[in-house]
Amino acid sequence: MKKLAIATIPGDGIGKEVVPAATKVLEAAAEVHGGLSFEFTDFPYSCEYYLQHGVMIPNEGMKRLQNFDALFLGAVGNPEIVPDHVSLWGLLIKLRREFEQVINLRPAKLLPGIQSPLANPKDFDLMVVRENSEGEYSEVGGRMYRGNDEIAIQNSVFSRRGTERAMDYAFNLASKRKKHVTSATKSNGIFYAMPFWDEVFNDVAKGYPDIKSDSQHIDALASFFVTRPERFDVIVASNLFGDILTDIGAGIMGSVGVAPAANINVNGKYPSMFEPVHGSAPDIVGKGIANPLGQIWTAKMMLDYFEEEELGKLLLDVIEGTTESGMLTPDLGGNSSTEEVTDEIVRRLRE
Amino acid sequence: MKKLAIATIPGDGIGKEVVPAATKVLEAAAEVHGGLSFEFTDFPYSCEYYLQHGVMIPNEGMKRLQNFDALFLGAVGNPEIVPDHVSLWGLLIKLRREFEQVINLRPAKLLPGIQSPLANPKDFDLMVVRENSEGEYSEVGGRMYRGNDEIAIQNSVFSRRGTERAMDYAFNLASKRKKHVTSATKSNGIFYAMPFWDEVFNDVAKGYPDIKSDSQHIDALASFFVTRPERFDVIVASNLFGDILTDIGAGIMGSVGVAPAANINVNGKYPSMFEPVHGSAPDIVGKGIANPLGQIWTAKMMLDYFEEEELGKLLLDVIEGTTESGMLTPDLGGNSSTEEVTDEIVRRLRE
Ligand SMILES: CC(C)[C@H](C(=O)O)[C@@H](O)C(=O)O
Ligand SMILES: CC(C)[C@H](C(=O)O)[C@@H](O)C(=O)O
Repeated sequence: MKKLAIATIPGDGIGKEVVPAATKVLEAAAEVHGGLSFEFTDFPYSCEYYLQHGVMIPNEGMKRLQNFDALFLGAVGNPEIVPDHVSLWGLLIKLRREFEQVINLRPAKLLPGIQSPLANPKDFDLMVVRENSEGEYSEVGGRMYRGNDEIAIQNSVFSRRGTERAMDYAFNLASKRKKHVTSATKSNGIFYAMPFWDEVFNDVAKGYPDIKSDSQHIDALASFFVTRPERFDVIVASNLFGDILTDIGAGIMGSVGVAPAANINVNGKYPSMFEPVHGSAPDIVGKGIANPLGQIWTAKMMLDYFEEEELGKLLLDVIEGTTESGMLTPDLGGNSSTEEVTDEIVRRLRE
Repeated sequence: MKKLAIATIPGDGIGKEVVPAATKVLEAAAEVHGGLSFEFTDFPYSCEYYLQHGVMIPNEGMKRLQNFDALFLGAVGNPEIVPDHVSLWGLLIKLRREFEQVINLRPAKLLPGIQSPLANPKDFDLMVVRENSEGEYSEVGGRMYRGNDEIAIQNSVFSRRGTERAMDYAFNLASKRKKHVTSATKSNGIFYAMPFWDEVFNDVAKGYPDIKSDSQHIDALASFFVTRPERFDVIVASNLFGDILTDIGAGIMGSVGVAPAANINVNGKYPSMFEPVHGSAPDIVGKGIANPLGQIWTAKMMLDYFEEEELGKLLLDVIEGTTESGMLTPDLGGNSSTEEVTDEIVRRLRE
């Protein structure tokens, strides 16, 4: 029996609704598998926790989380009660950083039965490899003067090591897929960082002569995600560019509610973390209509990570069967509840 | 007779094809008007110029341009012969900066007869006000170490003055439109710059109590441009965010070939510059199929700038009549040439 200890952090808003839904699915998946079991331990870190304790997560919490096989997170953020930069840097980004989850992996794939906002969506199936530890998301910088003369300086820091690491990850991934890596750049506008990014990309690409490689400026690339997403296989992007591209990816899938993600620790020192692309969606909290598919597809990425690819594939098939059947939450134009969709997935898994 | 001295800089690639097309249209428009005339003076600044002279534009060229009523530019860049960061910083961005064109204005609007990549495009009509002088496009930063330890540091510099100026521009523009300004932010991820951006936005918004204001993170906003562009009126964005959003805007219009832009000098010290969103498109140069509509619509923005709004409106009507008639270049799925589309516009203008 393979036993996996998973720390669940529902976080804020609909995180508290979709994490339990997805753990139910994972339990059913483990049963179907037979040789697998999950032990879930719940942690309360969230904006509410912050209001009570003055920190999003205590040091002692970081230490406890460290011992799990993986973290399964819902959503963080509730700007009504805690400013976003406090809650996100205090928990989500902190976890990604301190647990050295240097790669953020996010697929975009056309699901059957879902109305894409695109007129003629070809069968796109792409994966964004987002650098997840540095770049535009840096705490280096500051502010100076007050009033009219005030300036804010924000540093983006790119290291060769971090950049190469993300690119190597992308090329390795592409070698198991359609053998094509596209680099998201902006070397025509971002004066220091992006010509550097291009140089590293060209160097790394040389090491993978069998993989096709090209570069696109982020503005054009963002537009191509709308006009021709089927042209892409693996896209490697900086922290910010990856963030933007993957939300567009979620958009063309029909709803951010279906988009999954994985934060991968590649050195084995800390747990990886699985969390969907969507946020805490305060506007629909408590209505029972949050789309659980993003969190459930994220669970599939966790299964893949644990090398249970067969079970992962089964789960994705079941997700696709469910969307095809028309059982959809309101964000996808349907009228099913979180619970109905979850139960349908569990039923299909067990079939 | 109102005489306007316009410096034309066709630049690279298809710039050399669409600028003459649009000046032909402007001449026809002036005739129709009766009380208006243009004097065009051509300048050769381009990547080819760089190969011959070692600079994209000489100091003496900058001085000459300064005396024109406006600059009308095609496209800059040809990475086959000059690296993008050299050509763009040496000409396009240099002009924007030194001539203090601090606002970049870019509409996105659904044109009749054009197949949008969106399934059910509502009648969107939005305007992005892009801060055009600072932010992520800064020459502050550098690189350190070589080899494995190398790092590149890129500074984004935001001043209160520059940020406020763009926001004020946006609110003033919205007061003549649908009275709604959306700020593109990323205060949950960009640690110093974007919380500052939000503070300034909230301060500026207080001065316009009649205008509705809201903020969206750039990732969500990019996605909303695909899923619900009709919700927006004026969007105010940093240099980079504006760059990305306006290419998505071009994408949902059906082709980057139709998207116009204006670089506005607001202090009256230097000329403003009008240049479409598209690049030099080396792949289609010389085929006679470049879409002239982006450059022609840009001419319409120049007419508006010279307070010839009536003529500007007529020109936009004529553009819309032409797209509706199905006379389209290949990027829009048609098979008309640059010349055919241009002549059709001139014919309709004269009607
Ligand atoms: C060519 C490039 C430097 C430029 C920019 O990023 O500003 C272009 O994309 C634009 O939007 O005008
Ligand atoms: C919430 C925010 C800090 C985060 C990010 O920008 O990384 C989110 O948008 C994401 O993509 O996971």
